[in-house]
Amino acid sequence: MNAGFVLDTRLQVDTDFVIDLRLCTVRLMNDAQYPWLILIPKIANLSELHQLSEAQQHLLNQDSNLTSKVLMQLFEPETLNVASLGNIVRQLHIHHVARFTDDPAWPGPIWGKHPVMPYEDQIKLERIEAIQASFTHMMKNR
Amino acid sequence: MNAGFVLDTRLQVDTDFVIDLRLCTVRLMNDAQYPWLILIPKIANLSELHQLSEAQQHLLNQDSNLTSKVLMQLFEPETLNVASLGNIVRQLHIHHVARFTDDPAWPGPIWGKHPVMPYEDQIKLERIEAIQASFTHMMKNR
Repeated sequence: MNAGFVLDTRLQVDTDFVIDLRLCTVRLMNDAQYPWLILIPKIANLSELHQLSEAQQHLLNQDSNLTSKVLMQLFEPETLNVASLGNIVRQLHIHHVARFTDDPAWPGPIWGKHPVMPYEDQIKLERIEAIQASFTHMMKNR
Repeated sequence: MNAGFVLDTRLQVDTDFVIDLRLCTVRLMNDAQYPWLILIPKIANLSELHQLSEAQQHLLNQDSNLTSKVLMQLFEPETLNVASLGNIVRQLHIHHVARFTDDPAWPGPIWGKHPVMPYEDQIKLERIEAIQASFTHMMKNR
């Protein structure tokens, strides 16, 4: 399924690898202001959700549900923002952002609101490890 | 499936009915700046995508694909923004917005960017009728 798939260079720079799921590779946005994961279906030349086949959408639902449950369990947010925008990076990618009533952009959207605030290296590493552990735990128990 | 479902009052005020699909009711956001449809699953007490059952997610995919194809066919946008945010209105609703490189918020997100610019009544009516006709046409040919 991932023949010819190459991660967009801007996503490569702005995010760090977390885990590969059924359809998507999951990456952490390097912005310490919000727990923010990005799912990228490993399919070449894709920019819109409705271009996925029915089978691919089913896999994306599973990957998205799992990601949402990981964010809910680890961070206990007020709500999740799940969004495919693609105005700047055209490669299809689906944001999953844990939102809190005291986060810097609440209740507005996070995109374009505040400049990103990169993680300190050690804190980023710990966050990625915690998220990986939660995915592993959730996958064992589903 | 819609026992106990009541449309959120803010959505009721901000949007106009377009069509009922398999899972969702489709409404037009009263903002003439963007072709902007909102899909609301007709299920009571729902706020997050991952709370839908697998069968409901499958229906939502179908409704969302159809809506995306209608927006692409009618408006020929640069891209679509598809998003479940829920920071202000907690009832689950999924934005589908046709985006253009010359729209007022490009390339940023539309939410919270500019005050809404309500349609003139006659233009809104014509837009709703054009969207309804496109849905009907797409449903006949799928």
